[in-house]
Amino acid sequence: MEPRISIVTLGTADLGAACTFWEAMGLERKAKSTPSMAFFQLNGLVLGLYPFDKLAKDCHLPGGQPAGATTIAYNARSEADADAILAQAVAAGATLHVPAHKAFWGGYSGYFLDPDGHPWEVAYNPFFPLNDDGTVTLPD
Amino acid sequence: MEPRISIVTLGTADLGAACTFWEAMGLERKAKSTPSMAFFQLNGLVLGLYPFDKLAKDCHLPGGQPAGATTIAYNARSEADADAILAQAVAAGATLHVPAHKAFWGGYSGYFLDPDGHPWEVAYNPFFPLNDDGTVTLPD
Repeated sequence: MEPRISIVTLGTADLGAACTFWEAMGLERKAKSTPSMAFFQLNGLVLGLYPFDKLAKDCHLPGGQPAGATTIAYNARSEADADAILAQAVAAGATLHVPAHKAFWGGYSGYFLDPDGHPWEVAYNPFFPLNDDGTVTLPD
Repeated sequence: MEPRISIVTLGTADLGAACTFWEAMGLERKAKSTPSMAFFQLNGLVLGLYPFDKLAKDCHLPGGQPAGATTIAYNARSEADADAILAQAVAAGATLHVPAHKAFWGGYSGYFLDPDGHPWEVAYNPFFPLNDDGTVTLPD
């Protein structure tokens, strides 16, 4: 196994509404020839959106909306940038779930819930500097 | 918002056991100065492992083990490569949850559950070619 994730797929109750949200966040829908699933290009990997029932059928698991076992983090370039991303998400239809605050680990963090309840952390982490292209390379 | 995910964090019931599994899968633990959370370098982003209770507290959600709302896909380089990855996962302690099969969408796919029940799809997708570095660039 190479150290790789190719797609993070989020279940959705309303594919069209979820696409509207992520397009309002600035992501670009690609591979539109697949009408029942949405793909957005990220930093060398893909954000997928797929109806809850189809996702559950595909992976043979109950599905539904059991948020809390998996989170996705978006690391911003500064505390002000994190604030702006959270505000953008709320303007696009997300719920501000944990307001941004100084985190116990020394950074700055908040969470929004996307329209299907998936928790997205938006953080500024001074210990994990971002590369120019927005990717992360961990320290040893 | 730039098109970016920085960290995919999986809740875990046993951080040491989860680390043992992912190290057996060939991933390298980094940033070891953070003893209560594990970080593994992926393709420009990070796989995080964090205890279920701490993750739930951090994102103010119930937590636990509600798999099925989020999946992670690892796209392999061929059907044989996908078979080998699934076998490696089982040897490392995962459960083969959906055996690899020709998928309705034209590719080849199976799922394993990691030691905490998170569904990982291992697929060969001839429509989303992999770059040399293992990253994915979507067609339009």
